[in-house]
Amino acid sequence: MQLIHAPASPFARKVRVLASETGLLPRIELVDTAVLPVTLNERVNALNPLGKIPVLLTDDGEALFDSRVICEYLDSLHDQPRLFPIEPTMRWRTLRLAALADGLMEAALLVRYERAVRPVELQWNEWAEGQLGKVRRALLALEAHVEELQGPLHIAQIAVACALGYLDFRFAELDWRKGLPGLASFQASFAARASMVESTPA
Amino acid sequence: MQLIHAPASPFARKVRVLASETGLLPRIELVDTAVLPVTLNERVNALNPLGKIPVLLTDDGEALFDSRVICEYLDSLHDQPRLFPIEPTMRWRTLRLAALADGLMEAALLVRYERAVRPVELQWNEWAEGQLGKVRRALLALEAHVEELQGPLHIAQIAVACALGYLDFRFAELDWRKGLPGLASFQASFAARASMVESTPA
Repeated sequence: MQLIHAPASPFARKVRVLASETGLLPRIELVDTAVLPVTLNERVNALNPLGKIPVLLTDDGEALFDSRVICEYLDSLHDQPRLFPIEPTMRWRTLRLAALADGLMEAALLVRYERAVRPVELQWNEWAEGQLGKVRRALLALEAHVEELQGPLHIAQIAVACALGYLDFRFAELDWRKGLPGLASFQASFAARASMVESTPA
Repeated sequence: MQLIHAPASPFARKVRVLASETGLLPRIELVDTAVLPVTLNERVNALNPLGKIPVLLTDDGEALFDSRVICEYLDSLHDQPRLFPIEPTMRWRTLRLAALADGLMEAALLVRYERAVRPVELQWNEWAEGQLGKVRRALLALEAHVEELQGPLHIAQIAVACALGYLDFRFAELDWRKGLPGLASFQASFAARASMVESTPA
């Protein structure tokens, strides 16, 4: 398999971490690329019309996206405990938590596009602040339900860890750990896993 | 159950259409609201820290999001054929197609925010054009694989129909049917279903 990815993408990192944790990484060739909404990447566009990464090329030659679909697909290929829970109560709670982490990443990425990609004279502070509000509320909700991040490994732990890693990477000035001791403790422990260390963006 | 939604949201419409098609709609109270990234909606924020709709309040008092999680949850509650296929080949193909439709909606929504919400002097045409490029490539890909939209009802058909319905609602000037006879034919047929007619945004 091939994973078209970028080291800076938190969505791609989710896939790498899941692949590493489930023993699938040796079967996946990592192919680096870079995408931005305002530039064309023909190679990515040919595999994913949305021009987004990650994209997984399966051994059957199928190009899968987006990161959630890839993660669930990879989770069907290994023999270890499933990272997408089957038991209903646990499944919906975990998928909601993973969706919260994805939404946090999405909002942070939109702030990044607003402040680092858009010409400075066209930046709209209300937009960036609105997206940062989503980030802040998501962080408070994660702290309030930090017990959902305990226990056996599941996809939401990976998604949350990659979302927080993205804040460390691009939004160090947010100082997200302040006032969130439970979440800070979760991340201190989770970020030490080999899967996280080896996928830390430079 | 309660569905917090807005008639204009294509993501919320997916949930309504799925609920209608599976006979679950009578069990769901529709609660109208409106959200924008630059305004606070405390009621929605209390249920979904991301401030996005749809949100489903289950009979157990859980607030589920996002639309994909809600759709898969509702799909587990009825006795008719599953709209999220179980068989692997069909499952990954369908989830990819649904992700493509979600990405089309997401890109179109960002264009809407750029052109109808952001102050005109701060608008960046390259951004809107970049997002419209995603929309156009997604449409071409859907036309090229329109056979995947045939056969028994599945979640991707609903997602694609709601994405195309959103283009009709907000982007009539795109004239998306031009040059896409297969997709236009699919939509002509699908949009006539009662589930789609009753959820058409005004």
